[in-house]
This record gives sequence, structure tokens and C-alpha cells, in this order.
Amino acid sequence: MKPMGPIPPEFAAQQGALTVGGRRAAEWLAGRDGPVFVYDPAIMQARVARFRAAFAGVDLHYAIKANPFPPLLAAMAQWVDGFDVASSGELARVAGLGRPISFAGPGKRDAELTAAIRARVTINLESEGEAQRALAIAGALGITPRLAVRVNPDVELRGSGMKMGGRPSPFGIDADRVPALVRAILSAGADWRGFHIYAGSQALDAQAIVDTQGATVALAARLAEAAGAMPPLVNLGGGFGVPYFAGDRALDIDHVGAALAETLAERPAILGDSRFAIELGRWLVAEAGVYLARIVDRKESGGETFLILDGGLNHQLAASGNFGTVVRRNYPLALADAMGAEGTQTVSVVGPLCTPLDRLGDRVALPPARVGDAVAIFLAGAYGATASPSAFLGHDPAAEVMAEMIDPIARP
Amino acid sequence: MKPMGPIPPEFAAQQGALTVGGRRAAEWLAGRDGPVFVYDPAIMQARVARFRAAFAGVDLHYAIKANPFPPLLAAMAQWVDGFDVASSGELARVAGLGRPISFAGPGKRDAELTAAIRARVTINLESEGEAQRALAIAGALGITPRLAVRVNPDVELRGSGMKMGGRPSPFGIDADRVPALVRAILSAGADWRGFHIYAGSQALDAQAIVDTQGATVALAARLAEAAGAMPPLVNLGGGFGVPYFAGDRALDIDHVGAALAETLAERPAILGDSRFAIELGRWLVAEAGVYLARIVDRKESGGETFLILDGGLNHQLAASGNFGTVVRRNYPLALADAMGAEGTQTVSVVGPLCTPLDRLGDRVALPPARVGDAVAIFLAGAYGATASPSAFLGHDPAAEVMAEMIDPIARP
Repeated sequence: MKPMGPIPPEFAAQQGALTVGGRRAAEWLAGRDGPVFVYDPAIMQARVARFRAAFAGVDLHYAIKANPFPPLLAAMAQWVDGFDVASSGELARVAGLGRPISFAGPGKRDAELTAAIRARVTINLESEGEAQRALAIAGALGITPRLAVRVNPDVELRGSGMKMGGRPSPFGIDADRVPALVRAILSAGADWRGFHIYAGSQALDAQAIVDTQGATVALAARLAEAAGAMPPLVNLGGGFGVPYFAGDRALDIDHVGAALAETLAERPAILGDSRFAIELGRWLVAEAGVYLARIVDRKESGGETFLILDGGLNHQLAASGNFGTVVRRNYPLALADAMGAEGTQTVSVVGPLCTPLDRLGDRVALPPARVGDAVAIFLAGAYGATASPSAFLGHDPAAEVMAEMIDPIARP
Repeated sequence: MKPMGPIPPEFAAQQGALTVGGRRAAEWLAGRDGPVFVYDPAIMQARVARFRAAFAGVDLHYAIKANPFPPLLAAMAQWVDGFDVASSGELARVAGLGRPISFAGPGKRDAELTAAIRARVTINLESEGEAQRALAIAGALGITPRLAVRVNPDVELRGSGMKMGGRPSPFGIDADRVPALVRAILSAGADWRGFHIYAGSQALDAQAIVDTQGATVALAARLAEAAGAMPPLVNLGGGFGVPYFAGDRALDIDHVGAALAETLAERPAILGDSRFAIELGRWLVAEAGVYLARIVDRKESGGETFLILDGGLNHQLAASGNFGTVVRRNYPLALADAMGAEGTQTVSVVGPLCTPLDRLGDRVALPPARVGDAVAIFLAGAYGATASPSAFLGHDPAAEVMAEMIDPIARP
């Protein structure tokens, strides 16, 4: 038997039939031919509220790459201070939602820069070449472009699942070349919006984030001094992780927020009038999503029991361990109608694809399960439906649905 | 500098501008906003011809999961003896092409079984439970179902990239339970079509495939003897690999074919009237496909050079090393207009996605490259477009196009 990660707190406390957004799994699955992702906006709103309590005065941006489902974006637009997008496709999804938008990404095509400049979006420049192209396009359009500089920081985020600083990188401009670029942007007459500095993602170690944020603020100050200009906004990046696997502990964001408040209280004068933003994707939405599928077959082989679902890595690649992870570990999952029941049988939970990669739960302990039962795979709110090869093996894509906003007060 | 895998022979011999199906990369990219997969049917046909020369009298099935692009399927229908599908979605793609179809996959839903029985498709049964459901559905429809038994073999394919035998498995029925199931199928009045035995995939060691095929024929004979019935067809699976990485050598299929002919010449009497089939996907189409993208930016960071393309793992996940591989290695790639030129610069080739996972060539040696140049990533004909998260980060999907059939005689 192998362990599973922790079920998010809003669901872990449930007994009997799992409810998401006040409705049972069977209701969410009723009338559908296959699996469904259900997203609970009340859980997202609770995360936003926790952020606000911990980070007074700091802007909150939502990085839509984590989950660009349109009803989710519409909800998020009520709660956050801005959207971060990574393509003109993502830009189009939030262009009408009335929030400020910034656009990062290392391979912006001319057509994407044009769309961003026309939409008055802040472009986080990833290279000097991109800066030249953006200025030329803006000049041709007769629009003053909003340009920020993405910095490849000389610090990395310790313990992060994905490091994006402290090394040669396709992301951002090496710190030592940033002041010259800022001066060039300013002298070209562009509207310089500040810095975007992203050191890593999926970190659960609060002190590591504290240290990185401290170093990021110090770096922003050094660069601003060298450029001789106050950055209107410093995007400190994100990196807040969520617990996926056995042994993972939730990030203590209150500790991070208190330390950042101290850092900002003592910041150098050159950043005195700067605003600061934190850009979060996964942390806001991962725990709010549940992937629900049905058991199509139950079989024995070589002394092991397999539960075969009607969806797998074609819908939720990350849970199969085949997206950016070296060692496969189990996401939390449960029989949807037996929450809280003891796991008395060791089973492997697999998808319907004809490949051994399609394993969602490897020798996990579950209560007795039958064909037709619903299985819930948690932590499906981020990097799920859109980060999976939905056309693989010709199955239909999973449905996605936003639950209604209910009972937010009772949420943790 | 890290090595790349070998460019497939039809392209490795080219000098100067790469042509695929007689047209240059720039022509294939002209008028498009982004990357394109180009598939050359002449290369596929040449692979089919090599198979026919090596495996006289053995049926050839195409496993469409490798590449279900409709024009490719239409071409393949002229050349192969049958299609293997893994979902009702795949079934729909080949239902009108006039070739026999078999359907394997561990989580067939009732609706899928119904569609297959109605279409007179051979169902490769994956469990006793699935057999019961198929018989019940066929009975209700008043149709005699075509049923084969997928066997979880007690042998594995040594050296295969993905082992599917010799262990507890969601695929097929453990060999010791197969004779009873065959008898049950026969006594229920179904049209028993034989066995499907698949021991692994992506093997480059000819002797390993020879040994596995020998063991598979012996296993089929034992099971047939025990069941007291001659299998009309024995699907021996596939497992033929292609060279992706440095050091990989092409599979010697002539050796495999000669050995199989010997094995079949001496086969037990119970298999005397059986037909035999080999089911191939990757080997037929992988080398026939090229993914073409353009360089959007070229940048320096920390002493390294990055070429940033307008497509990446969103189109071709496998080349990024994030789909079923433990250690990331480089697929073969080239500057499309400098085939045969010396690699004088060490560069990393990355996609446009805002994630460090999106790396297509890690510190490879290429000729000097500029923004706007086309890059070719080879081995894109199998498990490319449909095995990638095409919606990830909101970029458009890659185009797919089938080249015209030209110059087949000059092909190796």
C-alpha cells in the first residue's frame, strides 16, 4: 500500500457522500457520459480572503494559466486586482473583465505584442529583442506601450517544485542587463510599469518564500537605483504551493505575509511609492477543484485489484505523475460516496487509456468499491483540464462546471 | 553540449533546405500563424513495404492511437489489413474506411461496447466483467458479437520502453484464467475471434522481440489447447521501436521477420489454421512526421543562448521529455534551412510556454540561427499532436497537414 496526499480541508472533513458546492458527486455526474471537473467558487473566495488577511496592502493577481475556465475567470474578476496572462489566447479570455492585465511569456509573437499594446495591457518584457519589437509595434500603432521588465533573478526559490531563478533561463532578462533596458524604455517614451520577478513555484516552505521575497525586494531596489527610476509596480511572483502528496504540509501564508510587511516597511527609498503584487494561480484554485469519474470495471490481475475509471490522464495528466514530476506519487482520491470510511482494500485506480502511464492511484487503500461508483480526485482545480492531452486516444474531453456560490461563511 | 537523437534516414541525407513531401519548410509554414505537423505518406508507405517484405503472410494492423489524423487514416486504409482502436471516438474515425477493426482498452463503457457490437467490430475483452457486459449488450441487440480475449501474458518484452506483460496489469486477462473465459464465450454463442497479446512497446532490441514473439505463440498455443479451440486470429502485439535518442539504433525487422517465420512454420497444430497479426503504430508513422516551428526570439542568459519557438510542449509534449520518460533526452532537431551544416553553436531550444518544462532541445549544437528561422523537430509523426495538452496556456493548436504522395520509389 502506498500513501496518498492530503485531501483539502473543505473535503477532508466530510463524512458519507461527498458534496462539492452543496451537491453530491452523483448529482454532478448525472446525465453525463463521462467525467467532470467541478470547481467550488466559495473555496477560491476563501483563499482570496486568507490572502487579503495575510497581505494587507499588497495587490493580488490571478495567473490564469492555472485555470482559464471562463466562469471561474468571471468569479475571480470580482476578487483580484489583476490578471496575468501568458498568450494572446489567454488575453482574449480576460480582456472584457475590467481588471488590469499583464502579459508574460518568453515567445511573444508580433501579433501577440500588437494585441497586447492595443488592449493597453502591461507587457512583461522577456528580452531586449522583445523590447525592440514592442517599441517598434507601438510606434507604428501610435500607442504609448505599457512595458515592465521581467527580471531573471540572481536568487532561486529554495524548495520550490519548479525553480525559475538563479540560473540561465529563457524567462526574463539577467539582472545585470536590466538597468540599461529600463533606461532605454524610458528614453523611448514608453510607460514603464516596473518589474516582474518570478523565482519559482509550488513551494511549501514559508521561510524559503520569505527569504526569496526579501531578496526580490532588495534586487528590485538595486535595479531601480541603477536605472535611476522608481518602479510603479513590483510583481514579486508567486510560488505558493499546495499540498499534493503524503507528508506535504500547507504553506503558512500568515508567516509569509508578516515577514513581507516587515520587509516592505523597511524598503529602500527608491521603492517608497511602488506598489507590490503577488501573482498566484495554483494556490487560489487547485484545492477548489474536484475531478469526478465513474468506475467502469473492477478486475483482478496477479493478485492486485484494479479499478478502471472512465477518464484518466487524458483529462488529468498531472495526477498520473507524467507532467513535470520525476517520481510518481499519489494525489489524494476517495470513493465519493464513502468519505471518511476506512480504506480496507488496496487497489490501483487507473484510467481507460491503453497505456501503463494512465495510473491515477497506485496501490491506495480505499473502502470496497463497485462498478458504477464515483471516484473523486482532489486538487484538480489547477493545471487539470487545460494541462492534459484531451484528444489522446479519442475519448471525449471532460466536462467542466462551476458550482454555485454557497455557504461561504462556513468555509475555513 | 548534449547529444541529439538520430534524424530519420529520409531527412538525414538532405543538405541545405529541408523538404518534406517535396516542399520546403518555409512553404509548409507560409501563411500560418504558428507551427505545423507535416506527415509524409511516402515514408509511411515505405515502412509498410519494409514490413511486408519482412513478414510475408502476417497481417499488419495500424494502431491509430499513434496518429489518428483523418487523411493519414485514409492513406493507411489502402495499405494495412486492419485498424486497432482504443475508444469509440477512435472507432468513429475508421468506421467508414472499409477495413476490419478491433477495439482494445481497459475501460470500455457500455455505450462503447454497444457501438462496437453494432459496427461488427472485434472487441478485445479486457476482463471477465467486460465479457459479461458485452454478451448482455449483444443479446439485447440480437447481434452475434465478435469477441477476442486480450491476454495479460506471463512474459514481458525485454528492453521495451513500456512493459505491458509479466506483471499485474489493467490490460487483458491473466493467462491462467483465459481458457475458462474462451469456453464461456464459445458456449454463449459468440463469434470468438482469438487472442490479443501485447507485451510491450518501443523496443529496439530485435532479439528481445523475437524471444517475446516466440513466447507469445507458445502461450497462444497453450491457451488454445486448454480451451479446446483454434483461435482464428492471434494478434501478437507490436513493440517495434524507433530511434529517438543518441545511441539508439534502428530495429532490425528483417531479423524479427525471419525468426517469426521459423516460429510459425513450427507452430503447434492447434494454431495450424490461425492467422497472425502484428499491430504497429509508432513504427509506421513516427519517422514520417516533422514538427515545424519558427524562432520568435533569441536571447542570452547566464552565458547560455536560448532559441524560443512559437510552439512547444503544448504541441509536442513528448519531445519535451514530460510524457512517460524519466530522464530528459533530446529528440533530433535541426535548423530547417541548414540541413547538413555543422553545429557550431550550443543553444537551448525552448517553446513559448511560461514553464521550465517547455524545453525541446537542451544545449544542442546547431548552426547559427536567427529570429524567423524555421526549426524542424523530427519523430513527430506518432504521439505528437493528440498526445499533447494543446489548450495549455491558451495558444492555438498546431496545424496538421498530410503531404502529397511523391517520389515513393526513391525512398529507402
